[in-house]
Amino acid sequence: MPSFGERLADTFLTRGHLCLGIDPHSFLLEEWGLPDTAEGAREFSLRAVEAAAGTVGIVKPQVAFFERHGSAGYAALERVLAEARAAGLLVIADAKRGDLGSSVAAYGEAWLTPGSPLEADAMTVSAYQGVGSLRSVIARASANDKGVFILAATSNPEASETQTALRDRGELAGWTVAASIVSEVDLLNPDTDRLGSVGVVIGATVDAVDYGITADRLLSTPILAPGFGEQGATLTDAPELYGEVAPNIIASVSRGALRAGAGGLRDALRAQRDELAEALAR
Amino acid sequence: MPSFGERLADTFLTRGHLCLGIDPHSFLLEEWGLPDTAEGAREFSLRAVEAAAGTVGIVKPQVAFFERHGSAGYAALERVLAEARAAGLLVIADAKRGDLGSSVAAYGEAWLTPGSPLEADAMTVSAYQGVGSLRSVIARASANDKGVFILAATSNPEASETQTALRDRGELAGWTVAASIVSEVDLLNPDTDRLGSVGVVIGATVDAVDYGITADRLLSTPILAPGFGEQGATLTDAPELYGEVAPNIIASVSRGALRAGAGGLRDALRAQRDELAEALAR
Repeated sequence: MPSFGERLADTFLTRGHLCLGIDPHSFLLEEWGLPDTAEGAREFSLRAVEAAAGTVGIVKPQVAFFERHGSAGYAALERVLAEARAAGLLVIADAKRGDLGSSVAAYGEAWLTPGSPLEADAMTVSAYQGVGSLRSVIARASANDKGVFILAATSNPEASETQTALRDRGELAGWTVAASIVSEVDLLNPDTDRLGSVGVVIGATVDAVDYGITADRLLSTPILAPGFGEQGATLTDAPELYGEVAPNIIASVSRGALRAGAGGLRDALRAQRDELAEALAR
Repeated sequence: MPSFGERLADTFLTRGHLCLGIDPHSFLLEEWGLPDTAEGAREFSLRAVEAAAGTVGIVKPQVAFFERHGSAGYAALERVLAEARAAGLLVIADAKRGDLGSSVAAYGEAWLTPGSPLEADAMTVSAYQGVGSLRSVIARASANDKGVFILAATSNPEASETQTALRDRGELAGWTVAASIVSEVDLLNPDTDRLGSVGVVIGATVDAVDYGITADRLLSTPILAPGFGEQGATLTDAPELYGEVAPNIIASVSRGALRAGAGGLRDALRAQRDELAEALAR
């Protein structure tokens, strides 16, 4: 099987760079006329998968909105993950998991193991405990042709104090936390002429210069890019926002598309996909 | 209802400071003669709860080992959380969740809402996206008399590069990431003569001085202290390790007790509880 990075590069070519964030938020369930239950979240998400299939190449279920409903929510999520993968979509579980030792290994096992009930194609993880703490997850991803996206510079304003802090020791002393993560990930994607399988999250609302993040460390790294739509960034600005590594971005939209409702979602996605493709082709 | 901090202080007085980490790791399931399934994890954990009830005051299920088994694992976890709370134990869900906006709010809802299937007394969270990103979780905890423990200085060696990075901006410029989190939490526990409900995680293997963490910012903050036992720290050293704020620690042991097996666990816990109590009374 091709690696996650290879499958992602293929998806970019055939279906573009847009990703639908599947967020069964209570207010969206209400707008869609669905109950605020695990069943409502399942119905919502399956309709979202149906609209995404054949329209875009990537979906990103937000795990928190399923966890809210406990084990019933997780059963709904299992169904959504399976249907999305069966429909040929690349599925990124937006879980932001992180821990140490055998605990973080168990998270990797949950999301990145073929045949696991929660199997996805990739997951998001957090390196508060160091990129080194994620070693087992990255190794599992590689062994199973899965992907990992490590939070680097996120799109919320409260994040900057931590993410712009400067490393005080080690080889990357003087680098920001976000830029050091980007740099450590760069070493994990050594093949410069194709996209690697270890990605980073860099929000579209982030000023990369302010974080000391430079394009030369992102040449073969997939970039999960939230922050488009309701959070403020515009898809047509993607080339300016990501510069020479804009071809590596997965531009994620959630509410900005989901608010179109079950009936309008496919058209909304198609319009946004084309808008993004046109901007990236400029 | 008394606040989480008040209930914790009462637990310290009546049952001591030891916490049993419930880690249904596959190798422990095997040692206990249980299958490596959701049912095995449930049985393991219910026996652990039974041994803990009346022996110690606090348990900390590691969510990753349930998530491994998908929705069936979550159903097992729901049962374990409910039985532990019904047995009068304070239950800390070791989830290390973190996100922004309505996503992180959904995590707070999942774990800290009375009547929710995953209801616990407290949860661990990660502030990679900033302490400010956790505002909704902290507010929910406060409204529901629940607790939150924010990762500050964790017990794994790979963590130090991130956690000792120095803030470059804001009021706490020049402070380490870990010390700034401790300081921000201090402001959330303003009542100096009693324990607050927002805690931090500071591993027993961490050199607090190296992280710039000082006791004067921890006077009313509960400290979740992993790293005892197999990770290297000794319970009898707790007073030296935590200094004047040792009375605020929840000393967590997992494998070091669980390896005693279902039959030996209660005695192992009793011995470790007494060893810790004696050390803290010195």
